[in-house]
Amino acid sequence: MTADPSTIEFWFEFGSNYSYLSVMRIENAAREKAVPIIWKPFLLGPIFRAMGMANSPFVLQKEKGAYVWRDMERQCRKYGLQWRRPSTFPRLGVVPSRMALIGADQPWIGAFCRRVMELNFVLDQDINQADRLAPILKELGLSAGTILDQAQAEPMKQRLRDQTEQARCRGIFGAPTFFVGTEMFWGNDRLDDALLFASERMVASSSSQARQ
Amino acid sequence: MTADPSTIEFWFEFGSNYSYLSVMRIENAAREKAVPIIWKPFLLGPIFRAMGMANSPFVLQKEKGAYVWRDMERQCRKYGLQWRRPSTFPRLGVVPSRMALIGADQPWIGAFCRRVMELNFVLDQDINQADRLAPILKELGLSAGTILDQAQAEPMKQRLRDQTEQARCRGIFGAPTFFVGTEMFWGNDRLDDALLFASERMVASSSSQARQ
Repeated sequence: MTADPSTIEFWFEFGSNYSYLSVMRIENAAREKAVPIIWKPFLLGPIFRAMGMANSPFVLQKEKGAYVWRDMERQCRKYGLQWRRPSTFPRLGVVPSRMALIGADQPWIGAFCRRVMELNFVLDQDINQADRLAPILKELGLSAGTILDQAQAEPMKQRLRDQTEQARCRGIFGAPTFFVGTEMFWGNDRLDDALLFASERMVASSSSQARQ
Repeated sequence: MTADPSTIEFWFEFGSNYSYLSVMRIENAAREKAVPIIWKPFLLGPIFRAMGMANSPFVLQKEKGAYVWRDMERQCRKYGLQWRRPSTFPRLGVVPSRMALIGADQPWIGAFCRRVMELNFVLDQDINQADRLAPILKELGLSAGTILDQAQAEPMKQRLRDQTEQARCRGIFGAPTFFVGTEMFWGNDRLDDALLFASERMVASSSSQARQ
């Protein structure tokens, strides 16, 4: 079950600092290349556990962990993004992930994800609590109560588990990860390559149609 | 003990596939920005072991390992580099690393390192054997016998151990790693950022001198 090769599947996790960079950048970058985004929130925790790791590699490997925060400062400066190192890392983002599943095909998905990411990586606040998430939903003109209820109900819980299991089956081992058809790209550093790949495929596909 | 902030320290390992990309690119890229390179060959094996890993993470984590080879194909295409996945990975590069220590300040260092990397990642050959390395040295107009003897003698063995230990003390956890002063950059994906950082420092330093 793979997406149309002319789209980009964007697999991200709200607790992941490198996902923060891509969430903030992807809508503008994809619009420039006219590549539609398929939003795919998932949880990294079960993925890491399936690989035998009890936590994020940035927590488990102290050398890499120390580096990552310096790298984030520089990357955010490069992309013109605000940045505060979260006092809790990685933050649990189960509730906003379920909300992102609800909104995945809706026009508000991008703005919602950016606001949740800013809650974590700019405002340094808990992202898993209803009272933090409700104001974001309201500000987007949505019914916070309805979406919160849906996000806490069993069907949406199961959908997030399923989506996370699908991530694992597709060979995803970190976030963000992008797919263009079956082609996998890992890390914010590959977002531009993935978009270029998708747009080149669109050109190839439309010129082959033109020849028919 | 840190280098002049206007230089780039280039820590690399001949068995590392992402070091291959940087070894092939760095001389041209650094020349464009007029940043001098300090070549720092070292061994990743002792670094990984100190972090509790018995081998490369690309071998230990099968999901990441599977991805890396596809990523390398695409990256090599992007940079216009040849690529063949090595039949042995990671290859031991102790002898060429000692040779690179001998040549670190010599004009032949860049060409030597590129040829050893091509032996590994284009020709898929053992890089730790004298009979593979001698032709490279000869082609560079060097006395292969003298350099081979030096590379097999105790002082140079100790120097490589010391340099690897220094890498560990500096917080290096992978290769390639770049330092500009005390600022660390990890991975081929950060080479351009590191060079930009070094060149901006040079500009800042020369304009502050001009004001004095």
